Amino acid sequence: MAKARIHITLKQGVLDPQGKAVRHALDSLGFQGVEQVRMGKLVEIDLADGPRGEQEAQVRDMCERLLANTVIEEYTFEIA
Amino acid sequence: MAKARIHITLKQGVLDPQGKAVRHALDSLGFQGVEQVRMGKLVEIDLADGPRGEQEAQVRDMCERLLANTVIEEYTFEIA
Repeated sequence: MAKARIHITLKQGVLDPQGKAVRHALDSLGFQGVEQVRMGKLVEIDLADGPRGEQEAQVRDMCERLLANTVIEEYTFEIA
Repeated sequence: MAKARIHITLKQGVLDPQGKAVRHALDSLGFQGVEQVRMGKLVEIDLADGPRGEQEAQVRDMCERLLANTVIEEYTFEIA
């Protein structure tokens, strides 16, 4: 079995109110030196065994068609 | 500036309805060989420069106190 780990993050320049809220919460808790917080999604998918190249193409397709909103988000993934 | 990348995932055994919904959606789209999907959170924090050991202690503290719900979630992070 292979495990795909996908990181989905907002593109640079896209406002991230959730990240801003977390940053303020960290400030209120007294954490210093926090310059920016960006929130993203992590998707872990267990895939049936198969050729690595096909798995990569499949995961890319999943990101494009369902997991990421490519207008405002970008994704990276690794398969292990 | 240092960048902390935090992965927050549900502990094993904790039900993940969002992951289940994504799995079904992938099935409906015709993706085969998807055995399990687990959804998690990704938090990227830009930290002011400082000693690595202190940064690690700080990020661990942020996870324990705000970012993760350690009853049902676990976290890992790296600082680069």
